Amino acid sequence: MKITKAVITAASRFQRTLPLQTLVDRDGRQKSVLKIIIEEALGAGVQEICVVVCAGDETAYRQAAGPDAGSLQFVAQEQPLGYGHALFCAREWTGDEAFLHMVGDHIYISDMGAGCAQQLVVAAQNHDCALSGVQPTREHLLPYFGAVGGQRVKSTSDLYEVERVIEKPTPTAAEQSLMVPGLRAGHYLCFFGMHVLTPTVMELLQQRIAQSGPQDRLQLSPILDELGRRERYLALQVQGRRYALDANYGLLIAQLALSLSGKDRAEVLAEICDLLARRDLASGMENLVEEASGL
Amino acid sequence: MKITKAVITAASRFQRTLPLQTLVDRDGRQKSVLKIIIEEALGAGVQEICVVVCAGDETAYRQAAGPDAGSLQFVAQEQPLGYGHALFCAREWTGDEAFLHMVGDHIYISDMGAGCAQQLVVAAQNHDCALSGVQPTREHLLPYFGAVGGQRVKSTSDLYEVERVIEKPTPTAAEQSLMVPGLRAGHYLCFFGMHVLTPTVMELLQQRIAQSGPQDRLQLSPILDELGRRERYLALQVQGRRYALDANYGLLIAQLALSLSGKDRAEVLAEICDLLARRDLASGMENLVEEASGL
Repeated sequence: MKITKAVITAASRFQRTLPLQTLVDRDGRQKSVLKIIIEEALGAGVQEICVVVCAGDETAYRQAAGPDAGSLQFVAQEQPLGYGHALFCAREWTGDEAFLHMVGDHIYISDMGAGCAQQLVVAAQNHDCALSGVQPTREHLLPYFGAVGGQRVKSTSDLYEVERVIEKPTPTAAEQSLMVPGLRAGHYLCFFGMHVLTPTVMELLQQRIAQSGPQDRLQLSPILDELGRRERYLALQVQGRRYALDANYGLLIAQLALSLSGKDRAEVLAEICDLLARRDLASGMENLVEEASGL
Repeated sequence: MKITKAVITAASRFQRTLPLQTLVDRDGRQKSVLKIIIEEALGAGVQEICVVVCAGDETAYRQAAGPDAGSLQFVAQEQPLGYGHALFCAREWTGDEAFLHMVGDHIYISDMGAGCAQQLVVAAQNHDCALSGVQPTREHLLPYFGAVGGQRVKSTSDLYEVERVIEKPTPTAAEQSLMVPGLRAGHYLCFFGMHVLTPTVMELLQQRIAQSGPQDRLQLSPILDELGRRERYLALQVQGRRYALDANYGLLIAQLALSLSGKDRAEVLAEICDLLARRDLASGMENLVEEASGL
């Protein structure tokens, strides 16, 4: 298995403007979120990228991609039929190849020299199978993620055979089906927003769509749950962090994380200290509180 | 003089995407930069707003303005002929009225209940004349701003009669022409990015354009320098801070300033502490340094 293609989904009606936002990357350069994600994919050895967007968003995305736009293929999701359906829109483009899949509203920061996507692609190619990035995540965050259950692959420290996938499990469902031996208590393996997927995933999506009503929204997690019963499917604990941009203050926190792990760490730390030292900001807040309480 | 109109300039070829960025405002709500600026103007009692944009940007700006878009008038600057020319594009719309003028790439945070624009409009209406917001600024920042020289208006603490305006003065020029009695040593009154302007400004711009070559880029500061010799023109030391979004890490610093003076101050402080406590971020930086130095 050799991974040369990546599919980025960015068609969610609520998050479609996030990839167009500008951030300063770890190298100190201003880039759109889309460009940062594209660079992550290219750094993993990918040569062709397909972006699934809301119909009508192609122009804005092409601008945001900058000089990389030429190497991008755009596919429009015409109707908001869910995340699984958005991915399925790229099926003709992926054909019978395995591919890297990333979401358009996450920023990934690696703890090591190799990028997060590169870690994933290397592991998938080594084991010649589908593979999802995961991160041990505390129980109270389960409502935000898909989570996997399974067993650690013998003589590895970061690979798991996936047996179950549940989207946003309840704590009870997680305790019953997703306990993973060897993780810290109260932690589960939640998705990192990055996968290497095989053509079987597109096949399973097609079957599911054939059985669905015309307005049914299709998720990806039930498909991945099925994938683990059809063929070998691993989870890799990525050495890095993902930052979901649609979270509360998601862009701010992602930008801080980029800056604090980048070349301008000292400069940004100094700015934070400077802001914290300003009495006027705290007094601004007091005025806001007084206004809100009608004082 | 009653101010009911505002002109926002956002036609700079380098900064035209800044007003389209999303920030979380002090009230905790996600808004485009454009919407935050519009709310600042409406809070000052303005009823109609004209936005000068690059030709072709109207649709993106209309989307970014959200529900306020209906009350906006757009005027396109067809060619990049400078900031003064962009403002002049709104002359038919402003007609013979004085108007509030704000730039589209600044965020303004007031230290008091009244917003920055409101402070400006109130002062201009009280004194019935043109008026620019200013902020005492350290000498080393002169290369980034227009600066004014003049005398403090008697029995006021924050108003100045403007005698000179110089765009990005050298330290020598500033020392010769812009020393303002009563300011801290090494400080000058630099523009806040917010003005109340009279129809005379449009008249002066028209004269200057008539004398210019077809490709000359027209700045605003020389016009304001002339304005002070034509009619009464004051500067108000605004109780607040401006954050220039086109500066290095400008969006990040503006977002931090908004958050640290807003309702979610405690939450954002906690996130900052959490990020600072992460060893992996610092180690990520070390990897970056090693990569860059080829280790």
